[in-house]
Amino acid sequence: MGDTPLLIDARVASGLRDLPPSLAKPRERLVDQFRLTFRSFGFQPIETPHIERKEVLTGKGAGSEEVLRQIFDVVNTGGTPGELALRFDHTVPLARFVAAHINEIGMPFKRFAIGSVFRGERPAKGRFREFTQCDFDIVGTEGVTADAEIVMVIYQALTSAEVPRTTIWLNHRGLLEALLDGISARDRGPAVLRALDKLSKVGRENVAKELTSTEKGAGLSVEHADHVLDFISAGRGGLGVLDHAERLLGTHESAKSALHTLRTIRRLLDESGVPGDAVQFDMGLARGLDYYTGVVMETTVNGWEKFGSISSGGRYDNLGSLFSQRRIPGVGASIGLDRLIALLEESGHLAGHVPASGVLVGQFAGVSLEVPFQIAARLRANGMIAECYPDPIAIGKQMAYGATRGYRFGLILGPDEFARGVFHLRDLTTRQESKDLPLEQVAEIVAQKCAEQNSG
Amino acid sequence: MGDTPLLIDARVASGLRDLPPSLAKPRERLVDQFRLTFRSFGFQPIETPHIERKEVLTGKGAGSEEVLRQIFDVVNTGGTPGELALRFDHTVPLARFVAAHINEIGMPFKRFAIGSVFRGERPAKGRFREFTQCDFDIVGTEGVTADAEIVMVIYQALTSAEVPRTTIWLNHRGLLEALLDGISARDRGPAVLRALDKLSKVGRENVAKELTSTEKGAGLSVEHADHVLDFISAGRGGLGVLDHAERLLGTHESAKSALHTLRTIRRLLDESGVPGDAVQFDMGLARGLDYYTGVVMETTVNGWEKFGSISSGGRYDNLGSLFSQRRIPGVGASIGLDRLIALLEESGHLAGHVPASGVLVGQFAGVSLEVPFQIAARLRANGMIAECYPDPIAIGKQMAYGATRGYRFGLILGPDEFARGVFHLRDLTTRQESKDLPLEQVAEIVAQKCAEQNSG
Repeated sequence: MGDTPLLIDARVASGLRDLPPSLAKPRERLVDQFRLTFRSFGFQPIETPHIERKEVLTGKGAGSEEVLRQIFDVVNTGGTPGELALRFDHTVPLARFVAAHINEIGMPFKRFAIGSVFRGERPAKGRFREFTQCDFDIVGTEGVTADAEIVMVIYQALTSAEVPRTTIWLNHRGLLEALLDGISARDRGPAVLRALDKLSKVGRENVAKELTSTEKGAGLSVEHADHVLDFISAGRGGLGVLDHAERLLGTHESAKSALHTLRTIRRLLDESGVPGDAVQFDMGLARGLDYYTGVVMETTVNGWEKFGSISSGGRYDNLGSLFSQRRIPGVGASIGLDRLIALLEESGHLAGHVPASGVLVGQFAGVSLEVPFQIAARLRANGMIAECYPDPIAIGKQMAYGATRGYRFGLILGPDEFARGVFHLRDLTTRQESKDLPLEQVAEIVAQKCAEQNSG
Repeated sequence: MGDTPLLIDARVASGLRDLPPSLAKPRERLVDQFRLTFRSFGFQPIETPHIERKEVLTGKGAGSEEVLRQIFDVVNTGGTPGELALRFDHTVPLARFVAAHINEIGMPFKRFAIGSVFRGERPAKGRFREFTQCDFDIVGTEGVTADAEIVMVIYQALTSAEVPRTTIWLNHRGLLEALLDGISARDRGPAVLRALDKLSKVGRENVAKELTSTEKGAGLSVEHADHVLDFISAGRGGLGVLDHAERLLGTHESAKSALHTLRTIRRLLDESGVPGDAVQFDMGLARGLDYYTGVVMETTVNGWEKFGSISSGGRYDNLGSLFSQRRIPGVGASIGLDRLIALLEESGHLAGHVPASGVLVGQFAGVSLEVPFQIAARLRANGMIAECYPDPIAIGKQMAYGATRGYRFGLILGPDEFARGVFHLRDLTTRQESKDLPLEQVAEIVAQKCAEQNSG
């Protein structure tokens, strides 16, 4: 006690977390895979700062009231409080970016953005105040092939990252519009959408309450609320859902156009490698955000629907309206990396994913430091992962470290072996050891052993 | 005027910036290359939050006074001001991470961390308040092979990323210690280091002033200041520098040990693929940070020294002293991505780096949407980058877009071609066109053309 120096608590801040290698590595793999997919469709990366001018983030329609309440303010010495804040998504920064760079980027503009966003949510299990979103958008076109492409990117990104089978659910704002027109309640659209968005969470009865409430809700009559709920509850599945919707709403202009769009998307995907049951329709899919104007989409992993949507998005008619008088339509979606990782972890798809590979080169007190150091360098020069253990501790401990770190082989070369120009190679997963291999061929032999193991 | 809606200014905040694809793409390539190098040495990724508890960042010795003045505070609705802040480097979060996870991560622990750090510097050309650092550290060992490995990682990461020839400058705190002992001024070490660190920026005369100032400086006598400046000004170059230092300081214990370490590092690197002139010694290299205790290093690109160091680091005896009573030695370095990119841009190594590749598939009004959409899907399924233009505008405009976006080929398939089951393939860099190619073999033909172009 007594003179113990005062230590600072090493905790992360509330609602935040560290990602050790066991979590950071699979995240890296997923993100790498997503980027390959994004690039293969011609999307290009952009980066915007984590810090934005606060008025950019709080402009009308930029985020829901809830999101705006969760904004993190940022201020430095000499700065003015209230001027800066941390971004809460990649969509508002995209809108600002497009408006700011419209003359240099050209249209259509396909970009992806992967990075942290921040929301001061009440800390809870599985909810973090910093999380990673992987966004991809096609800006500057109203073409339906762009809508279909966004759906296909979701499918392709998740499939190539070996995420288990998913269903992408589609709806179209035009159908809800027609539905509201049918009950003369189009002006209450946003309130209706907000209420419907909660259906899976709070149940029909509570949504009905919100739909009929004149104070905090949409102020519909009980009959109309029932009509809306009947319509959206009925429709979930394949093309039959669209036929059903057509019978109910088909004479309405925006319904007709919406149904045509949804059918075209389905047709475009059908023969492009996306299986039919991977894309379905859900008339109840609302997505509360005001800026969506056309197709909207969410993605669930089959059997793990309780995790909610792992990739959501839709078409917006005017991304840049806050910043520019030019009308900038677009369509895009976002993969929620943290939710996806949590799902993969719980569903057992995250573990056992990486076979052991690489070589740990042991160090011995009686052998000159250069020897293991140069062997590791030679192995790396031949394309292998190789680490030279930094201290000449007991070789068993070095090998145990190698096994923990996921190395396939341990290379053992004590003074006796060195004198004889040989080394031992221990398979750290089977503990079998190949002895007295010729040192001068170390790179070739290890490469061969690695290849054998991979094919075996 | 009149009813024009109020628009929000689309500027980024002062001192921050957007990275359009022209900058984000080469950054991505560099980072990918760095990660390959880090991994090949057995480093594993970790991620820590951008937001830390402020006391973690401001603990004694965590950062220089200057850095602490530049901290960005963070607060959300309902939060307490002064509790949270944005990280200003990856080293302090590493120290906290290691202390928090010491029992699960095991030692030695080799991690890399790549991400944004934030400093509220006065905005100036080329200086940004958010920038990317790529850190790699080996924690939990005092072995000199770890020091040598960090130097080798710098060399390898920069070389494999095709950065032009660099020099890694090494020094050792033990030499400065011996020098200070010789003038009985060891207690004024930090002040001396801070002054020496500015030598290249402010010149000898100003450093001499700071060394002799009793108020803001180290309070050395004029003679002693001269002695220090003579010593560090003389020594810059190959092994001869160490011989020179040995003649002056060699009887001092820490000088002896420091010289032995530096010579060992050089020997370890010599036969491991690092050319002799890529690693040199600089007795004037101080690196102001208090936490370094052994080897220190900086890296300049030959001929572009005015950009300063693009990768710096060193050995620290006790990384976690703020957070843990356990002594945790380590060694590491950081590549400053933004400075490196700026250098590559100015030195002409950034442009013309990416040959055109991939295919833009044109869209025609008279051809069913599925046709180009499915062709693009087939090309991607064959490993190519392929984009389907989203609108049936004039084909010349579509092709011009393809050229701007860096596509090598444009695929043209109008109603006439479709009827005949053929397509045209236009080389967007040479404008040559191969006509009437059989549509059913589109994937094979395009793959072959791409291969021809790459080998040609």
